[in-house]
Amino acid sequence: MKKRDVVIIGGSAAGMMTATTVKRRYPDKQVTMIRNVSKTPVPCGIPYIYGTLKAVEKNIIPDDKLLAMGIEIIADHVERVERSDKTVHFSNEESLSYDKLVLATGSKPVVPPIPGVELDNVFTVAKDPFFLQRIFTALQQARQVVVIGGGFIGVEMAEQIAALQNEMKQGASVALVEMLPHCLLLACEEEFCIEAEKELQQDGVTLYTNSRVEKLEGAEGRVTGVKLADGRTLAADVVILGIGALPNIDLAEQMELEADPRLGIKVDDQMRTADPDIYSAGDCASKFSFFDKQPSCIRLASVAATEGLIAGSNLYADKPRRTIGALGAFATQIGARAIGAAGYTTRSAAAEGIEVVIGDTTAPNRHPGGLPGCIADMRVKMLFRKQDGVLIGGHVIGGEATADMANVIAVAIQKHMTAEELATMQYATHPLLTASPLTYHIMVAAELAAAKL
Amino acid sequence: MKKRDVVIIGGSAAGMMTATTVKRRYPDKQVTMIRNVSKTPVPCGIPYIYGTLKAVEKNIIPDDKLLAMGIEIIADHVERVERSDKTVHFSNEESLSYDKLVLATGSKPVVPPIPGVELDNVFTVAKDPFFLQRIFTALQQARQVVVIGGGFIGVEMAEQIAALQNEMKQGASVALVEMLPHCLLLACEEEFCIEAEKELQQDGVTLYTNSRVEKLEGAEGRVTGVKLADGRTLAADVVILGIGALPNIDLAEQMELEADPRLGIKVDDQMRTADPDIYSAGDCASKFSFFDKQPSCIRLASVAATEGLIAGSNLYADKPRRTIGALGAFATQIGARAIGAAGYTTRSAAAEGIEVVIGDTTAPNRHPGGLPGCIADMRVKMLFRKQDGVLIGGHVIGGEATADMANVIAVAIQKHMTAEELATMQYATHPLLTASPLTYHIMVAAELAAAKL
Repeated sequence: MKKRDVVIIGGSAAGMMTATTVKRRYPDKQVTMIRNVSKTPVPCGIPYIYGTLKAVEKNIIPDDKLLAMGIEIIADHVERVERSDKTVHFSNEESLSYDKLVLATGSKPVVPPIPGVELDNVFTVAKDPFFLQRIFTALQQARQVVVIGGGFIGVEMAEQIAALQNEMKQGASVALVEMLPHCLLLACEEEFCIEAEKELQQDGVTLYTNSRVEKLEGAEGRVTGVKLADGRTLAADVVILGIGALPNIDLAEQMELEADPRLGIKVDDQMRTADPDIYSAGDCASKFSFFDKQPSCIRLASVAATEGLIAGSNLYADKPRRTIGALGAFATQIGARAIGAAGYTTRSAAAEGIEVVIGDTTAPNRHPGGLPGCIADMRVKMLFRKQDGVLIGGHVIGGEATADMANVIAVAIQKHMTAEELATMQYATHPLLTASPLTYHIMVAAELAAAKL
Repeated sequence: MKKRDVVIIGGSAAGMMTATTVKRRYPDKQVTMIRNVSKTPVPCGIPYIYGTLKAVEKNIIPDDKLLAMGIEIIADHVERVERSDKTVHFSNEESLSYDKLVLATGSKPVVPPIPGVELDNVFTVAKDPFFLQRIFTALQQARQVVVIGGGFIGVEMAEQIAALQNEMKQGASVALVEMLPHCLLLACEEEFCIEAEKELQQDGVTLYTNSRVEKLEGAEGRVTGVKLADGRTLAADVVILGIGALPNIDLAEQMELEADPRLGIKVDDQMRTADPDIYSAGDCASKFSFFDKQPSCIRLASVAATEGLIAGSNLYADKPRRTIGALGAFATQIGARAIGAAGYTTRSAAAEGIEVVIGDTTAPNRHPGGLPGCIADMRVKMLFRKQDGVLIGGHVIGGEATADMANVIAVAIQKHMTAEELATMQYATHPLLTASPLTYHIMVAAELAAAKL
């Protein structure tokens, strides 16, 4: 039977990062990465297939780097794993034994338990090129599209579907349904959510916030409408479900590894399962919060990548790496607005009873403001714990640098930095790239908070 | 006689930051800011007057925010300060007494001791609108412009003058003369300097590196050429001197405060001079290096702003703030390339005998790379101290987010973060804004170094 040193099941962010890390750290080890798709879509790029790239094959993670590193890629379906003889069995009855196994089986889109989800033209956003192409074909023929779920994936899908429809001669109407009072409200400050909603509306998306879906209606097996709990019905010939994902623990359950349907495959802070030769990383693996070390359901490619790096390093390490826990560090772009966030929102801090002091500043992202590309109202809002002045959240809305400004904040949160420290540090600025040194958002927001602490 | 609680002499980055900080922290204090220009140019924006803004008055820091905070602005020349009775005397024989005085008198451009610098049409880059307008008028009539000095100011001036000349019907030729083997070499990695030079050349700037200026030649009192030490003479009817700045200590010397012509007005880490009622901040104040606490000549608006914040906070504070020392954190944009840097270069680390481990990665700043605005070869190079893995330098070349990516690095340097910490943190990424979570430059560069440490 074929044997490999390291077998990784799953080929998206966590799987790839595990594979490359093992090869970098332990170049002599044979590494095989198994995936159940022929090609791996860029997970976060999926919405941009529809309105920007216009082709599923333009949103593929290339294999060349992995192959060049000597990583073997197998596109096949794993039927079961026998832990007793450390063997992976494929559906075609072939098998492969391992020294170390890493489960990076990812997540599955949530299908809500409402009538009608089984109707034709109701799609989840699954990371499979064939499936993504089916969505594309349906969208090109749609008259009325309804996206259910106003988190990142739902908002980005709605925005990109609107972009596609706006380009087509007789494009479809696009509606977005969200249960909460605003889109993106779990990750972003309310005012920033409202800015995103304005962008969506300008792009032609009709918003139904505070709205719960009761059922999907159909005729001849095909979806025809979305019935809301308030009695309204939205006509729909294509429905996209973007309401989150749950860990894919099917294989772990078959293997009798401890796994929770909501929290994932049980791992410790070294990404080890209870089986000393089996690790897990990414959306399928259990996580704890960076902040309170309690179980966390944050599932992001950024978390998956870091976990893959840690798992891959630890397989043969003397001194293991440990995860510091999952931090939500996000960025998106809706219309002309980029939004970045890390850590707590005002809302989530209040929900946990954490008293915060806020620094909030708006300034142009150029100096002087007349320079090309200026966004006059770039804004940064930062949340510091009142008790010790430590940064626990930050929110950015502005231009292209928004994500990396959120990363200044993300790093500062992960390093437990205080308002005082961030106010008195030095930051690179430039007329064509940032606010002025007098108004650089992170420094000023930190100082405004420090003055109140 | 008029009396104010706080009098600040100087109205650029340090002066303004001091003024606003005092008003924010101590709203009841009367604050007067004195400057010797009617309006304050954005210091870093000066090059962009010539090729982009096309008007001196478009590069002015507005006074409205300061006035709205109740800060009094006096545009006048200070003749002397009497410390015995704490009084500022103006050239018009008026005077103003102070409780606390802050010297933020800035710097003066270096005029090199070579023959011919006194000729007409030889300009330093001084922060005075009238003077800047004279440069503009000369540039609009120039046939051959030579910029002497290939640091940030020289490179940016050359690039913008070339942009102006390229737009004009019969624009002037533009040459840049630099003593070192490359432009920007004191702040940036050599390979990044070479990229900047390529951009300059594409914009039509002729480069003379490794070239020392021997003298300026003239006829009838006007400059006609720049004679290099190797014997070549560059024809020139306008010469711009961009070879650095020295602290303006004239007033401090009159006041008999300790001051060094090269290092500036002597202050401690709370920005206090030896006189308990006099502080100093910005280009005129002495500095020490963040790294080795030795005297530093780093003069940047970012340092000045932080020092102003510290000085302004400390004037009436129970618990003083202290500066952590000057870190060089820079960004610029040359043609299509933005370049950011913080801390050591490979060259400066070697010069100090510091052994470093380098993490160096190149990846597109979009994922997938086909998305709009992609810069395929965005690159980050980070230097970690071999002995303990602590980050001491970082260099970025790429797109608009370059400065804020340099700020992730700047913050990490100032917080003494290690390759291990930076490799295992989580970073916000987004297809339209950053590299993928698998290739995010800072994480990957840190991991490449961590694997070698």
